[in-house]
Amino acid sequence: MSPVLVVLDLMGIFVFAISGALVAVRKELDVFGVLVLAGTTGLGGGFLRDVLIGATPPAALEDWRYLLVPVVAGLVTFWYHPTVGRLERQVGVLDAFGLALFCVVGALKSVEYGLGPLPAALMGMVSAIGGGMVRDLLAGRVPAVFRSELYATPALAGAAIAVLLDRLDQPYAVSALLGASVCLAWRLLAMWRHWQAPMPSGPASV
Amino acid sequence: MSPVLVVLDLMGIFVFAISGALVAVRKELDVFGVLVLAGTTGLGGGFLRDVLIGATPPAALEDWRYLLVPVVAGLVTFWYHPTVGRLERQVGVLDAFGLALFCVVGALKSVEYGLGPLPAALMGMVSAIGGGMVRDLLAGRVPAVFRSELYATPALAGAAIAVLLDRLDQPYAVSALLGASVCLAWRLLAMWRHWQAPMPSGPASV
Amino acid sequence: MSPVLVVLDLMGIFVFAISGALVAVRKELDVFGVLVLAGTTGLGGGFLRDVLIGATPPAALEDWRYLLVPVVAGLVTFWYHPTVGRLERQVGVLDAFGLALFCVVGALKSVEYGLGPLPAALMGMVSAIGGGMVRDLLAGRVPAVFRSELYATPALAGAAIAVLLDRLDQPYAVSALLGASVCLAWRLLAMWRHWQAPMPSGPASV
Repeated sequence: MSPVLVVLDLMGIFVFAISGALVAVRKELDVFGVLVLAGTTGLGGGFLRDVLIGATPPAALEDWRYLLVPVVAGLVTFWYHPTVGRLERQVGVLDAFGLALFCVVGALKSVEYGLGPLPAALMGMVSAIGGGMVRDLLAGRVPAVFRSELYATPALAGAAIAVLLDRLDQPYAVSALLGASVCLAWRLLAMWRHWQAPMPSGPASV
Repeated sequence: MSPVLVVLDLMGIFVFAISGALVAVRKELDVFGVLVLAGTTGLGGGFLRDVLIGATPPAALEDWRYLLVPVVAGLVTFWYHPTVGRLERQVGVLDAFGLALFCVVGALKSVEYGLGPLPAALMGMVSAIGGGMVRDLLAGRVPAVFRSELYATPALAGAAIAVLLDRLDQPYAVSALLGASVCLAWRLLAMWRHWQAPMPSGPASV
Repeated sequence: MSPVLVVLDLMGIFVFAISGALVAVRKELDVFGVLVLAGTTGLGGGFLRDVLIGATPPAALEDWRYLLVPVVAGLVTFWYHPTVGRLERQVGVLDAFGLALFCVVGALKSVEYGLGPLPAALMGMVSAIGGGMVRDLLAGRVPAVFRSELYATPALAGAAIAVLLDRLDQPYAVSALLGASVCLAWRLLAMWRHWQAPMPSGPASV
């Protein structure tokens, strides 16, 4: 991976890890719980993707920086959680950058491992939203991605665009940048305008 | 895989996916939650099995039909959930067919990947019940398989019979058909007569 | 693996499985739920580790004794749960032995599979605490390890010491024994003195 990509990747992990640590603080978990939720939120999506596409051990287990970053994010949140919590809106914007980055990087990695376009786009989405889903499972709540403003759809769209451009023999940077831009713009708009995915209409039969 | 088996497999995934989508509608998740629960319920058992036996990437990631089927099941349930919900008893019968199919196919695949008879039978059961367990985890409820009418036992029995017959050099079709029949008959009887697995007797010490 | 190690390993799995089965009995799950929680608690940590380091299929799927032990533990707990429940303090002491054993064995196995010292120590901790986390997820509660007396920290410390000694070319037995002793002593002290990991200070912002 190019150094630019590594730095971006680590920044995405950092932001995701903060969101995990904040959930842990609010659930009144101890420092260890904070660190585990920081780690699984930051790295969980990539782990899921790598286990499913057969790229084990996951990259994060071969590079100590990938383990250090969530620890730092967890400790910062543990110590300064009132401040971090107040900055949640800003963290949400950074989280959108992480989402955009992870979906394209995850999708293009899956293509490299031989997946077809549709599964690769799906794995891109899994990379981007998987960490948050594991976070919510461990914290004992229904994954936020099932109920909140549009989150998974922009990730899937960004991943699909990146895969498509890659199929059309565009260079990595172009595919990644265009895919990530669409995901980012869509996600930020969804946050700003409170767009939600459609709900089932009418009462559910029991 | 023979075309017959693929069609059966896709039908099993469709039925499982519907049960996942119904849970999502009742939990008031949005359309994305409905699709994810449809997908994980339909494909989760096979994913778990493939990751554990080292058959990555899972077959479903290499064949777009396996991804399309849960999406269709999810959308149908999302739009017509009152009708689908009213048909739940019939869906339950189809689900028993899916259970019977998945347990033998999963077990025989595990044998192919070099597992011994006991673990292969277990992996057959995991293929059959794993999707429903992931569904319940994501929906934030204790897996139904731990409390409802007999569900896992017929799957384990069917898988064990298929593995045993395979050990005795019976052809695939014979092993699979006999195993699946036992699982199916047992499961349908359990639904009809409300058979339940034994509960611990007496109050639990705390 | 040396026969001594196998026996110790099976004993650790037995004790972990009992803790899983006890949770299931208290959640009023049926006998199948008791067996699944026994199995996932006993074997889940090793499964997680093996899937992440790419050592599939997990060892437990290649040796029937590893499958038999949790079944026996589950059935014993199912039938004699009032007695087993009353012995929980003693089970907790045995559990500390299991924790100490699993963290060093898991860490040294990860080293063998090519992981660096930091990820290997982490995988040792995952081997030791992963089963209990899966147990709590399936039972629908926030993992006990996030809230109870120190549990993960001693496991991480033991794993780190074992990895460090292994790096210094100490024989397996020495690395394992020293790592395990530190983990065991620390965990027993934590139980005895009710040591807890630090909690976030002040109220969480919402």
